[in-house]
Amino acid sequence: MRFFSYFNKFLQSHPSSAKLLVLSSISGGGLVAYADLPSDKEKPSLALEHEGTRKKRVLVLGTGWAGISFLKDLDISSYDVQVVSPRNYFAFTPLLPSVTCGTVEARSIVEPVRNIVKKRNGEVKFWEAECLKVDAVNKEVICRSYVNENLPGKNDFSLEYDYLVVAVGAQVNTFNTPGVSENCYFLKEVEDAQSIRRAVIDCFEKAVLPELTEEERRINLHFVIVGGGPTGVEFAAELHDFVHEDLVKIYPSVKDLVAISLIQSGDHILNTYDERISSFAEQKFQRDGIEVLTGHRVLSVSDRLIDVKAKSTGENVSIPHGMVVWSTGVGTRPVVKDFMEQIGQGNRKVLATDEWLRVKGCDDVYGLGDCTTVDQKKIMEDISAIFKAADKDNSGTLTIEEFKDVIEDVTIRYPQVELFLQNNHLSDITDLLKGVDGNEREEVDIEEFKLALANVDKQTKSLPATAQVAAQQGAYLARCFNMREKCKAEPEGPRKFRSGGRHEFRPFRYRHLGQFAPLGGEQAAAELPGDWVSVGHSTQWLWYSIYASKQVSWRTRYLVVGDWTRRFVFGRDSSRI
Amino acid sequence: MRFFSYFNKFLQSHPSSAKLLVLSSISGGGLVAYADLPSDKEKPSLALEHEGTRKKRVLVLGTGWAGISFLKDLDISSYDVQVVSPRNYFAFTPLLPSVTCGTVEARSIVEPVRNIVKKRNGEVKFWEAECLKVDAVNKEVICRSYVNENLPGKNDFSLEYDYLVVAVGAQVNTFNTPGVSENCYFLKEVEDAQSIRRAVIDCFEKAVLPELTEEERRINLHFVIVGGGPTGVEFAAELHDFVHEDLVKIYPSVKDLVAISLIQSGDHILNTYDERISSFAEQKFQRDGIEVLTGHRVLSVSDRLIDVKAKSTGENVSIPHGMVVWSTGVGTRPVVKDFMEQIGQGNRKVLATDEWLRVKGCDDVYGLGDCTTVDQKKIMEDISAIFKAADKDNSGTLTIEEFKDVIEDVTIRYPQVELFLQNNHLSDITDLLKGVDGNEREEVDIEEFKLALANVDKQTKSLPATAQVAAQQGAYLARCFNMREKCKAEPEGPRKFRSGGRHEFRPFRYRHLGQFAPLGGEQAAAELPGDWVSVGHSTQWLWYSIYASKQVSWRTRYLVVGDWTRRFVFGRDSSRI
Repeated sequence: MRFFSYFNKFLQSHPSSAKLLVLSSISGGGLVAYADLPSDKEKPSLALEHEGTRKKRVLVLGTGWAGISFLKDLDISSYDVQVVSPRNYFAFTPLLPSVTCGTVEARSIVEPVRNIVKKRNGEVKFWEAECLKVDAVNKEVICRSYVNENLPGKNDFSLEYDYLVVAVGAQVNTFNTPGVSENCYFLKEVEDAQSIRRAVIDCFEKAVLPELTEEERRINLHFVIVGGGPTGVEFAAELHDFVHEDLVKIYPSVKDLVAISLIQSGDHILNTYDERISSFAEQKFQRDGIEVLTGHRVLSVSDRLIDVKAKSTGENVSIPHGMVVWSTGVGTRPVVKDFMEQIGQGNRKVLATDEWLRVKGCDDVYGLGDCTTVDQKKIMEDISAIFKAADKDNSGTLTIEEFKDVIEDVTIRYPQVELFLQNNHLSDITDLLKGVDGNEREEVDIEEFKLALANVDKQTKSLPATAQVAAQQGAYLARCFNMREKCKAEPEGPRKFRSGGRHEFRPFRYRHLGQFAPLGGEQAAAELPGDWVSVGHSTQWLWYSIYASKQVSWRTRYLVVGDWTRRFVFGRDSSRI
Repeated sequence: MRFFSYFNKFLQSHPSSAKLLVLSSISGGGLVAYADLPSDKEKPSLALEHEGTRKKRVLVLGTGWAGISFLKDLDISSYDVQVVSPRNYFAFTPLLPSVTCGTVEARSIVEPVRNIVKKRNGEVKFWEAECLKVDAVNKEVICRSYVNENLPGKNDFSLEYDYLVVAVGAQVNTFNTPGVSENCYFLKEVEDAQSIRRAVIDCFEKAVLPELTEEERRINLHFVIVGGGPTGVEFAAELHDFVHEDLVKIYPSVKDLVAISLIQSGDHILNTYDERISSFAEQKFQRDGIEVLTGHRVLSVSDRLIDVKAKSTGENVSIPHGMVVWSTGVGTRPVVKDFMEQIGQGNRKVLATDEWLRVKGCDDVYGLGDCTTVDQKKIMEDISAIFKAADKDNSGTLTIEEFKDVIEDVTIRYPQVELFLQNNHLSDITDLLKGVDGNEREEVDIEEFKLALANVDKQTKSLPATAQVAAQQGAYLARCFNMREKCKAEPEGPRKFRSGGRHEFRPFRYRHLGQFAPLGGEQAAAELPGDWVSVGHSTQWLWYSIYASKQVSWRTRYLVVGDWTRRFVFGRDSSRI
């Protein structure tokens, strides 16, 4: 515990220390640099909009990373803030895999929403209910509380809003694979992690019963994980540790019958990570005896069997299992789907926002986190307008000087430009204008300009569905809300090339702060900013220190660190509660 | 934490210190002096019974206080030990009321059975299953595992035994009050405590929803507890603290609408305690605003209303409630009921054992804890035999000298004699033989002897259904099992007055070590040995130190003390998980 508190204190007393900022800002499995995000300093109480004296009503749907991050930073003296979520707590989801095996207790990673959003200068109203429908025309949402329905009083209610923030997250995606919803465990909610914990114990309790054949015992103890992303991999590692550090001691008779398999459709596990991490993980799992089946697609899951197809050979195999944990991708929630139909996004898969996180096709509605995707404007759509705006002398050609004039606005508005430069090892945006022969040109005409930028849009990437993205979006949007009045008067955003004038705000820009992958046995892998990769025991300690520092409250920090200590000293508990 | 560890260390380094033994041995709500019970020192490996080389099979049903206490002390080198219980953990039940409000976490009070019974000199086999039927004729039990029934392998199995120990505990007793099973929460199992915790939060979440009338909010926040025993009282106190220390801060809008009522059929709450404690508790509850309805009987409970009848006036009242916690008395489990029918105890309410904890009417079956009652032999049944045995010279009269000869055996065999003397302020058993005029008599004849002892049997009391009784019984029986061979050769029990010879063992004798009643607001009441009564803040600290020291493992001790500390610093968590 001393190490963590030391680390924490150090972080707090040296907030600007460059090196530590790197450490404290990288984040794993989507962990976000909560305390360090900007916008804290710039909270003027200017946003009060007079309409009579009524404050504008902001309604937030969801209390995950995006919603809570927004609420933490929002200046509620200027708004009348209401929050609706079916869970009255915020869960520190990157620790969910640890909860599955009791390394950390469920209650150590949750904090009541009301505690988090308690503010000195006003009250945030919270209701534990699910949003059933967004009515964008009448600017209201229909909600239903699933709190014990026997209790007297209406369960349904509707709320009106001036601004709506949709941050309801995503749901599990079964890709319509038959039998998955009925026969698999998931790992998205706190309750899921608790169920998995009980189910693992169940498999062991069943496997040691008297009248089973050895084959039956072996099947009961075959744990299958579908999905080789960070969550699946971390769960496999946790489970391996739980079994080999704790369970074999108290279920000695079946210790040689346990098997863990990880099924991944891609060619490698952790394929969103650096290659070095991916292969380190595969090697570690091989040494640990965790079977990794890459290039296999799941066809169906029944209560006893999981059918998979090897992509290379086309061969189908039925594998008997004790339990299957399904951890692949995310899908859209029905309420979002319905909302998308209303606003003409029915043919899309995910709710689209513009770069300012405003939902496309609907005023005053914002979208954050896993339920949304940011639709990056293509530079080629605006290419003529950019050319025209830059060509001040209306000569029909663009000089380097003229181009330099718009460069800043272009890179802010179209971040793919910077990515393109990076990936093509171009040091300067003006390099773009060089001729095919590599020599600088005095001027380019519109066709040459288009040609130069033709491949830029291919760099557009959609953001991953991680806590890191969600939390940065929440903080960004809170800042926009806080600065609304100020930026209306003095826009700070880039030039509007088509219509003239400037955008009020800079568009949202995701800063990837790195990611972790704990691999069990006190080893972890991490991608750090600047293309650094770090693996091994020291990385696990880095993980401990950063996850401890990133906790949302001192209470959860105390509990999480206490849990880790307890685990080191006493192991994990296997009581089935 | 320092205080507890200091206290613990002190206890361990001064085990025989008389004053501390008092402290460390009293026990509240049924807490038992686990580590201090006898029998630890006397564990010879003599009990091995040769029948070929097969060890005798001991089968234990249940892993509550009785079962675990028996298993902890049993010398398993002499027996082949099997345990069946539907829960794979032992729960420290006296802390259950603390779990209902999150003062202590559920997982902090449980310890896996396999950890507890792990022994160096052999293996105790444990199966997580429920015993469905005891077949006393064939000496086997039928069990069924309720572990996930989708898992492959048979769920049913049967086990044979040479000795059976029935320690399955009791179930909730609704006294057939209509609606209780459907609409009340109970407080017997760990899961019950967890449900109550969620339900309390539900009531608050419902009460703050937008479209409720104030009356509806008030009803949602009316918490009713039925039963004024230690559990009900402690829960009421915990709930009051939870509401007023934690919940009102985050649900400020409804803080004046909360009400707690305690319904008790008797004239006072805590009526098994000393009168001073009972009235202290009533006064404290009155100050706290907890309504105590004594002398009220519950007629029925519906989802919205609880109907009660005032015994004094005969008036019926219907009280609207948000939730009802039912905490009154215990009933017999179906498997025990069925077993009782088999062995001719069908007309009894509780399984009867003799004073050696042997089930009456069935050889080689022992009964422990809440599912049994010890049937104390009446002295008047044996009075002639005692007289005859004592009257060595066959004179037809008993001299004081002759009586003195049998006194020790009589008081061991019939403990009610000692109680009778105590309650009648007689200093010596020979005082019994004094004449009506108070003068000593030289001799008594059989009629005078009978007259002298006529009222003794009225002192026979059945033991309360507490953890303290159960644990003492478990330890006692383990000692009998460990000493079986030795005591067969050298009986240590009292004289058999009817048949001659001696009993192998002394009969079980319950030592009441006192009891606690935590009353909230860091105050507790305690009955200490020697008719001491202690109330107030210092008693609460005594409670903390004793409950910490009595934990079944260092892990749970660490967790419980950690939870208390967390509660002091951060309050209780109100996340609904």
